[in-house]
Amino acid sequence: MGTLPRTVELFYDVLSPYSWMGFEVLCRYQNIWNINLQLRPSLIAGIMKDSGNKPPALLPRKGQYLRRDVMLLSQYHQVPLQFPKDFLSVILEKGSLSAMRFLTAVNLEHPEILEKVSRELWMRIWSRDEDITEPQSILAAAEKAGLSAEQARGLLEKISTPKVKNQLKETTEAACKYGAFGLPITVAHVDGQTHMLFGSDRMEVLAYLLGEKWMGPVPPAMNARL
Amino acid sequence: MGTLPRTVELFYDVLSPYSWMGFEVLCRYQNIWNINLQLRPSLIAGIMKDSGNKPPALLPRKGQYLRRDVMLLSQYHQVPLQFPKDFLSVILEKGSLSAMRFLTAVNLEHPEILEKVSRELWMRIWSRDEDITEPQSILAAAEKAGLSAEQARGLLEKISTPKVKNQLKETTEAACKYGAFGLPITVAHVDGQTHMLFGSDRMEVLAYLLGEKWMGPVPPAMNARL
Repeated sequence: MGTLPRTVELFYDVLSPYSWMGFEVLCRYQNIWNINLQLRPSLIAGIMKDSGNKPPALLPRKGQYLRRDVMLLSQYHQVPLQFPKDFLSVILEKGSLSAMRFLTAVNLEHPEILEKVSRELWMRIWSRDEDITEPQSILAAAEKAGLSAEQARGLLEKISTPKVKNQLKETTEAACKYGAFGLPITVAHVDGQTHMLFGSDRMEVLAYLLGEKWMGPVPPAMNARL
Repeated sequence: MGTLPRTVELFYDVLSPYSWMGFEVLCRYQNIWNINLQLRPSLIAGIMKDSGNKPPALLPRKGQYLRRDVMLLSQYHQVPLQFPKDFLSVILEKGSLSAMRFLTAVNLEHPEILEKVSRELWMRIWSRDEDITEPQSILAAAEKAGLSAEQARGLLEKISTPKVKNQLKETTEAACKYGAFGLPITVAHVDGQTHMLFGSDRMEVLAYLLGEKWMGPVPPAMNARL
């Protein structure tokens, strides 16, 4: 390409199914497009509060649509999403604070494994309807991603330190400053300009902004590797 | 293809900029994909009321995003959108009742010209910041689309008849029954199944459902014709 890779930031929360789809698409393209993908674990509850937005599923007709939309997109994106049985309590009551603090700690100490740990947390909550709030749930995801039991416990101990808490706050505030009112958002830095794209359905437009080729949510290089 | 064309319905309101983009994309693909495109003029105000949804622009941060999103998509979709200066009053106060009743009358009497009249109304409100509520505004759009002054006046007289009013109500109710909480919605009838897709950003997924090829919002056959 001859040009330096453009930085693309993905702000996400594992509570959000659309975040998972955006995450997988960008992880697939990070070795195809000339980009430097930066994963930014954020807290969706903080963004909703700061923006005054409400979870779409609270409006019954949006909730019904969201369910079908997520299942259809999951098939097309080849991401194994399944709705948690008690969807609203998982989203509104249990939340993702510990999980996102854990991912923040992973990002601070073992950034090379952040992608895998994030995916394992999504596999729990959004594919197998398993808990992500208890310490043993988070440890199980971390070990499945390749951390040793000791490393995982060490990181878990750090989630209540000011350093980790503040980092998650700062990342969430950064998303708000970019104009987020939900997650995921993708922030592309191209030719001195910053573009914020909301949701998982602007990846084709992201390709256009980057001057890269959009080959669908499952690009051929990815297919070849399967 | 060897198979009968699949019916694809587009429910839209000229008040909605995303409807315009969905409309242009489907109009471009109607001669490329094996589909029978049915245009369904509907009233977005009725759908918002029935579903309990609120216009996204009422949340300040969504409003700011929407403005940039529409302009970026307009460029990528090659649809000449410009924001009306007094956007919120155009959307929330002036509305589109007469315009959508007029399009309903056009659909009843001259369906072959519905696409063109719809486009001319969008060109007024969403490209040139012109009125679409006054009789002379609607007549001007109709004549620009190819109707004679006499035909246009004849149709305008019919917008207060029960037949036209009821037809617009029925179409709007049909959208609600499909689960709409805003516009546009695209309803695809494929192999005995009905799929409702909300917004203008599911056209790639529509192609997937139809087993057709997605070639971006400006397909090559369209480029060739420009």
